Amino acid sequence: MAESPRRAAGRRLQLPLLCLFLQGVTAILFAVFVRYNHETDAALWHRGNHSNADNEFYFRYPSFQDVHAMVFVGFGFLMAFLQRYGFSSVGFTFLLAAFALQWSTLVQGFLHSFHGGHIHVGVESMINADFCAGAVLISFGAVLGKTGPAQLLLMALLEVVLFGINEFVLLSLLGVRDAGGSMTIHTFGAYFGLVLSRVLYRPRLEKSKHRLGSVYHSDLFAMIGTIFLWIFWPSFNSAPTMLGDGQHRTALNTYYSLTASTLSTFALSALIGVDGQLNMVHIQNAALAGGVVVGTSGEMMLTPFGALAAGFLAGTVSTLGYKFFTPILESKFKVQDTCGVHNLHGMPGVLGALLGVLVAGLATHEAYGDGLEGVFPLIAEGQRSTTSQAIYQLFGLFVTLMFASVGGGLGGLLLRLSFLDSPQDSQCYEDQIYWEMPGVHEDEAQGPLKVEEPDTQA
Amino acid sequence: MAESPRRAAGRRLQLPLLCLFLQGVTAILFAVFVRYNHETDAALWHRGNHSNADNEFYFRYPSFQDVHAMVFVGFGFLMAFLQRYGFSSVGFTFLLAAFALQWSTLVQGFLHSFHGGHIHVGVESMINADFCAGAVLISFGAVLGKTGPAQLLLMALLEVVLFGINEFVLLSLLGVRDAGGSMTIHTFGAYFGLVLSRVLYRPRLEKSKHRLGSVYHSDLFAMIGTIFLWIFWPSFNSAPTMLGDGQHRTALNTYYSLTASTLSTFALSALIGVDGQLNMVHIQNAALAGGVVVGTSGEMMLTPFGALAAGFLAGTVSTLGYKFFTPILESKFKVQDTCGVHNLHGMPGVLGALLGVLVAGLATHEAYGDGLEGVFPLIAEGQRSTTSQAIYQLFGLFVTLMFASVGGGLGGLLLRLSFLDSPQDSQCYEDQIYWEMPGVHEDEAQGPLKVEEPDTQA
Amino acid sequence: MAESPRRAAGRRLQLPLLCLFLQGVTAILFAVFVRYNHETDAALWHRGNHSNADNEFYFRYPSFQDVHAMVFVGFGFLMAFLQRYGFSSVGFTFLLAAFALQWSTLVQGFLHSFHGGHIHVGVESMINADFCAGAVLISFGAVLGKTGPAQLLLMALLEVVLFGINEFVLLSLLGVRDAGGSMTIHTFGAYFGLVLSRVLYRPRLEKSKHRLGSVYHSDLFAMIGTIFLWIFWPSFNSAPTMLGDGQHRTALNTYYSLTASTLSTFALSALIGVDGQLNMVHIQNAALAGGVVVGTSGEMMLTPFGALAAGFLAGTVSTLGYKFFTPILESKFKVQDTCGVHNLHGMPGVLGALLGVLVAGLATHEAYGDGLEGVFPLIAEGQRSTTSQAIYQLFGLFVTLMFASVGGGLGGLLLRLSFLDSPQDSQCYEDQIYWEMPGVHEDEAQGPLKVEEPDTQA
Repeated sequence: MAESPRRAAGRRLQLPLLCLFLQGVTAILFAVFVRYNHETDAALWHRGNHSNADNEFYFRYPSFQDVHAMVFVGFGFLMAFLQRYGFSSVGFTFLLAAFALQWSTLVQGFLHSFHGGHIHVGVESMINADFCAGAVLISFGAVLGKTGPAQLLLMALLEVVLFGINEFVLLSLLGVRDAGGSMTIHTFGAYFGLVLSRVLYRPRLEKSKHRLGSVYHSDLFAMIGTIFLWIFWPSFNSAPTMLGDGQHRTALNTYYSLTASTLSTFALSALIGVDGQLNMVHIQNAALAGGVVVGTSGEMMLTPFGALAAGFLAGTVSTLGYKFFTPILESKFKVQDTCGVHNLHGMPGVLGALLGVLVAGLATHEAYGDGLEGVFPLIAEGQRSTTSQAIYQLFGLFVTLMFASVGGGLGGLLLRLSFLDSPQDSQCYEDQIYWEMPGVHEDEAQGPLKVEEPDTQA
Repeated sequence: MAESPRRAAGRRLQLPLLCLFLQGVTAILFAVFVRYNHETDAALWHRGNHSNADNEFYFRYPSFQDVHAMVFVGFGFLMAFLQRYGFSSVGFTFLLAAFALQWSTLVQGFLHSFHGGHIHVGVESMINADFCAGAVLISFGAVLGKTGPAQLLLMALLEVVLFGINEFVLLSLLGVRDAGGSMTIHTFGAYFGLVLSRVLYRPRLEKSKHRLGSVYHSDLFAMIGTIFLWIFWPSFNSAPTMLGDGQHRTALNTYYSLTASTLSTFALSALIGVDGQLNMVHIQNAALAGGVVVGTSGEMMLTPFGALAAGFLAGTVSTLGYKFFTPILESKFKVQDTCGVHNLHGMPGVLGALLGVLVAGLATHEAYGDGLEGVFPLIAEGQRSTTSQAIYQLFGLFVTLMFASVGGGLGGLLLRLSFLDSPQDSQCYEDQIYWEMPGVHEDEAQGPLKVEEPDTQA
Repeated sequence: MAESPRRAAGRRLQLPLLCLFLQGVTAILFAVFVRYNHETDAALWHRGNHSNADNEFYFRYPSFQDVHAMVFVGFGFLMAFLQRYGFSSVGFTFLLAAFALQWSTLVQGFLHSFHGGHIHVGVESMINADFCAGAVLISFGAVLGKTGPAQLLLMALLEVVLFGINEFVLLSLLGVRDAGGSMTIHTFGAYFGLVLSRVLYRPRLEKSKHRLGSVYHSDLFAMIGTIFLWIFWPSFNSAPTMLGDGQHRTALNTYYSLTASTLSTFALSALIGVDGQLNMVHIQNAALAGGVVVGTSGEMMLTPFGALAAGFLAGTVSTLGYKFFTPILESKFKVQDTCGVHNLHGMPGVLGALLGVLVAGLATHEAYGDGLEGVFPLIAEGQRSTTSQAIYQLFGLFVTLMFASVGGGLGGLLLRLSFLDSPQDSQCYEDQIYWEMPGVHEDEAQGPLKVEEPDTQA
């Protein structure tokens, strides 16, 4: 029998109580552990003999702002393509990312910048926290519309920790290079979300199928997300690289790669479309695969041609994935991937990792000159050959896939806890169960707004 | 009896004539007084022995651009939540802010950078002019939908002058610190607008009540405004601070404060919502209160924990304000506050000022080291104790409230001049009286587009 | 008789095949010719004795990102004002600009930075490629809704080449100054598009007239484009100027000019509007004319007053153009200018070129001091008088008009090739012929979505 509305409302207390609890915990941990670093602390900064122009702020903050726009505007609106889930897409992105920024400041801080009993924060920790929020939002895309906000916060709670550990293993223990996060962000976020979605598989989701499409204007809102992601992706990949030629080259490579994934996405979408028509889902998503695929190799001497080739391949694979693989993923593998994160982040992320293996393996002292130190410090110091760096890169991919899969599985079990508020099969992809809707009480409904019948078989 | 359409159309001449007159006046004043400063003038810049990299442009322009985006995109779209007032929200924001930029360049220039008979302009005057435009737009939020564009231009004409004087009194005469404008921008703009709205009180505004809500897509447009304000607020508060650690720390504090106000807004909105549902008005507005509340203290050694606590408090107060205080404000105090600026800018602005009192009072030489000079120059120079700085900060809040109240009262009287074009009680929140509407003549209306009956009792 | 749907679908193969072909060609050319320049190449950068802070990236990349946002967000959404052409406006902008970035990297590279058999790329080539994409999108605005995507790609293929040659003639051969592209971008793009539209004149376009307007929300989407263009235009004009005072002054001049064109646009739109009402088309477009008109003179010592006067004039001319000249352009000159690019880019571009003639002619050694070298190097070196510089500027305008007209004519002939897929007269301004539309098969159409009858007389 269906839950009574009153009991359902009672379950809604989960969200506010969880928000308050999590905020309380992070605030206490901030009070105990988090301190300004030497570039944000008034006393420490002025103790050194710097010019203000040397402050890291001036080298990284413009890139940070672009990344910040991608996380909140880009991801939020990209997921607003569903006809009745715009409030939740933008709103839960906002909530999840805000929490993830705090929580990952702590987790990453303990792992990367914990000195003298304190975590030290500045623009680099801001960028890294935004990166982690990006991974959480990728996973959100896989379960979009099928999970309540309290579930999503718990997912973020777990995922941020595993993201931090995986990143620490790759970057600090294995010496893997992955500036733009083909592995640490995209592969990790995608497979975490996909495995989690597998565990939460809903065999009767066709009850909500009529809401699983877009309407004309929701597709335009989604294009806002797409375009902001696309234009700022060069800043995303270059935000944490070494200064100078490193940041400059990474931005350039990403820029070219994205132009190529856009061309291949349009080409493939029309080729496989009914009557040669283009498909908005492809354009909104697959055109971005060029940013994902150079996440690892963008800082390397990929060459402009290499960037084009990589982007072209990624756009092609991603578009074909939406057409041919997503249906199989659901029917055969029981993975319901709302936004197709497997196509945009999963496959291009893995490709990006493999491209990193290749480009690292092909690195020569001649091509990098004295810049080798910045890109492959362990090779420059003679601790590794290029081949061994390539093998470490490959190993990093496997580690990431393992962390993501195990983490996503754990996350799925956590989210299946029966007392957690989760939408019924007939109420997925529907804002109305979480949001006061405009016009509902005044008969001014826009689109299919009528209240769903309770799920009598649940 | 209702005005004849012809006479009403005649009144519409007020807008173009006022635009032309104001533009003529500012152009003449620009010709006489405004000159490039030593960083924008070809001859002056090359007279010094600078490297081009020293030009202030490279330290402040990226922040300026973020502020500029907040003023025009952020405020404009945030106010587009009303179902039939999107053109006016975005359009009048555009007009008012464009005028305010010119006019405040002059007013602030006379007060702050008038040397040798000339006002000198560069990126700092651009930032300051945008800040002043922000205050005008906050006041616009209080009277949104109830005032014509000519009235709004007159409001801006007065408000920019009072803003400039209040800012001059606080920053230059009282030595108050207020980089992000908790007092000078948010408190001033909010109470100016609220008092003005009080003077313009409309007892029969329920005639337009049916237009005072959102529709599904107008709420998504408003979220564009919200998210752009949210992501760029760190740049807003840090744009005018001292270079180096000052800008860096301010951005960091604001970033943390906003994450906390977002979490508390989601928590409180669900707690007080019908059936635990979230309310878009809260999310769109109260989540931003974390930016307002650290406007004064963000450049100080607030600590990351302090930023979280401040943001949490601001989001809480703001959300509760929308639920419980806004209705009282109208029923008891006869203040009709369309956008709830009292909740987003008024209360958080006052809280931010008080937080500034506290943090200034707690300042120690040890905590700031040689950076004390940059944050509290009068304390560093031995002219003031921290306690006396705190008292000055508190006095600055009272001065601001006084200027805002008197100014808003004067503004209200000015806008009540009977010859000024103002929408009738039954035509508030309606684009159609100011804009040629698409589809009106072709029966393709989207939503409640029918022409209003004239107000027969007016 | 109408084409069979099957044959029409066959023609749709043109788009994917052309995309693949063009991508293949540019990829090969990239492999052979394009290399990192000394600021993006790891070995070359570290060979010099630079500080990383000297890398051009830190001086130009923030401006580049603003330009990038203008091209993809600004142009894309500005053209989304049509009720049924939002997917195509945003989508084809995305496609055309992505291709233009690759292709113009090659064309401009051969003309400007071809050394030792290679094109060298970095942030400056990125900015220049985006500028060229801007010109292509201006031309797109003239033929919006009347051309298929394969036609548009061919247009871009031709236009990028002619843009590059015209720019080379002006900047390198004639020593003309045109940092923000009043001539090279706006005048060129507008007249290229207008002449092309003339050649493609459709006498029976009234069959699609019912789709040639906006709806309420499409106008708000267009305002997203407008506002992003407006706020970032100071970065557009200043992105390629000399560092230091040059960039700073250009941004400042553009900022003032835009405020004045906004005021004059509101004034004129209300003056000439029915019942004094404002017209969204004017606000969306003419308010931007202030950015176009200082494209040449913005880097010069225009003075703040000069910027206001120029912007005011441009907004006025542009608004009047929409009201009075656009209808004549169609009825008398048989030029169907969908977006009114003649008003926003054509006339203000020519005015901007003439303003450049004037300001160059009035230049004095006293006003520029040692900064003369940066703005007018040929005058500083004594090779030219200010008068002769002014004459060269004027000559540059004529050259541009000639290249644009001849190029647009050639382009029109190219696009009329009968085998090219082009929408029928009754199917212009309609997304449905190129895009899979949401809800079409499920009877959830939003707005006038029904399938058009085939054009029986074609």
